[in-house]
Amino acid sequence: MSGEAAFIAALRGLATSSAARGLADDCAVIDLGGEALVLTHDMMVEGVHWLPGADPADVAWKLVAVNLSDLAAKGAQPLGVLLGYMLGDNDARFVEGLGEALAAFSVPLLGGDTVSAGSGAQTLGLTAIGRAAHRPVPSRSGARAGDGVWITGPLGGAMLGFEALRDGTDTDTTAFRRPVPRLAEGRALAPLVTAMMDISDGLLLDASRMAQASGVTIAIEADAVPFAPALPPGRRRDALSWGDDYELLFTLPPTITPPAPAFRIGIVTSAGPDPVLLDGCAPAGQLGYEHT
Amino acid sequence: MSGEAAFIAALRGLATSSAARGLADDCAVIDLGGEALVLTHDMMVEGVHWLPGADPADVAWKLVAVNLSDLAAKGAQPLGVLLGYMLGDNDARFVEGLGEALAAFSVPLLGGDTVSAGSGAQTLGLTAIGRAAHRPVPSRSGARAGDGVWITGPLGGAMLGFEALRDGTDTDTTAFRRPVPRLAEGRALAPLVTAMMDISDGLLLDASRMAQASGVTIAIEADAVPFAPALPPGRRRDALSWGDDYELLFTLPPTITPPAPAFRIGIVTSAGPDPVLLDGCAPAGQLGYEHT
Repeated sequence: MSGEAAFIAALRGLATSSAARGLADDCAVIDLGGEALVLTHDMMVEGVHWLPGADPADVAWKLVAVNLSDLAAKGAQPLGVLLGYMLGDNDARFVEGLGEALAAFSVPLLGGDTVSAGSGAQTLGLTAIGRAAHRPVPSRSGARAGDGVWITGPLGGAMLGFEALRDGTDTDTTAFRRPVPRLAEGRALAPLVTAMMDISDGLLLDASRMAQASGVTIAIEADAVPFAPALPPGRRRDALSWGDDYELLFTLPPTITPPAPAFRIGIVTSAGPDPVLLDGCAPAGQLGYEHT
Repeated sequence: MSGEAAFIAALRGLATSSAARGLADDCAVIDLGGEALVLTHDMMVEGVHWLPGADPADVAWKLVAVNLSDLAAKGAQPLGVLLGYMLGDNDARFVEGLGEALAAFSVPLLGGDTVSAGSGAQTLGLTAIGRAAHRPVPSRSGARAGDGVWITGPLGGAMLGFEALRDGTDTDTTAFRRPVPRLAEGRALAPLVTAMMDISDGLLLDASRMAQASGVTIAIEADAVPFAPALPPGRRRDALSWGDDYELLFTLPPTITPPAPAFRIGIVTSAGPDPVLLDGCAPAGQLGYEHT
């Protein structure tokens, strides 16, 4: 068990409120005054979550986008964000990108904290708060045998963007630097889905998490998965286990057509020995990005 | 202007929602479904907010306590916390202290994020969410000339505890390591106060912030301020500008007696040239802990 896995297992003992969803979901969900409040907090660390030398405006955008993507997976409308900011090399440029992201997604900054740097890597956190558009609020655990498995858009664009930044090539890097959370899609889908989550760590890994939370197997057909147009066919398997595209993964009863653009990539079956199958077999190699 | 002051000034341009309270309050306050939701996020950095070698259980306790103290200043009942955790040297010990603090204050862990360390200082964040017990929710800006100025308990204990840890003496360090947010007091006071905040950066500095937010002067009598019994009289001026005691500072109309134990330390006057006076004069020297 990795250090992170052991730590989260220990935390789970403290997360006894039903609102915590056993720390196994993208968000906490609090019932309050006739509303369901959806909360998430994600951190980003220099050198771990962004490349040294990255534009601080892109870092700010991504910090907002990854948190709003968690709200999207709950079908929630964002109410605001709190920023935890460690001062860095170009704070003015960070504020520019933050302002662009908040304006793009119509979300206000509500508060937070600023600290001077210690030694070493700049570390940032963001808490996003939303209001569920539909109750019950979708979880990862409701997929049922017979459901269709869907995603909202193509994979691989973020991977190509990351590699272009890393290698200094002139491939378009927008998909990696400026992901767009599927907020409207999440709200439209929330009343219909049996399970929903965002794809942040790789389709195969995230699908296996959904399958395990739901007690089912998710069977994906590789040919049905949409990929970024620029992705060479030889890289498709890589793109299936690469995160950062922030599309939504969801399951629907077989008779239902999604009310938002989406691609049907497989079906849910009763639980077999493997949580996820790719073209009928347990996928070889890495399923996605696992923290160590 | 310091880096942090410039950054916060730039952020203020993005915090246009009334819920953000101009980033000039301890918390954001969102009206939702007939309730007022109170949110705060504070960070702590190794070497900046805690001494190298500190017990991770104490760090966890303090991270919870400083955030709940912000809720206390709004008279809010905590609903839960989200933890942003960078893995460190003794994560099991951190979980122990976290569990002790959450149990002591009856607050559930709702979620959060864990990241592997980059290089350098461990950095932590915590978001606390509460439900206001009384509306309107107290702010820093309502103090009026003629009000009494009060604090809920003695100052200087945290300073002595910090110095004992730093110098390795055998003075009791509990006040610094394990502060107790004044949650019950805050809820009892919220319906009556004209302004309230917690003392985190030093009484004189925090009083000057309240005075500036309210457009008044706060006149404090040094002899009326309660101090920790162990504080030598020669250290009283230091204790007035040392934070971390997490008592509540509040103002009340002159005819009202507080419903919680508290000490009347001065009065509010109309705005003079200085936001805070100590025995009738502008205090010489540092008012409190200012981030650089």
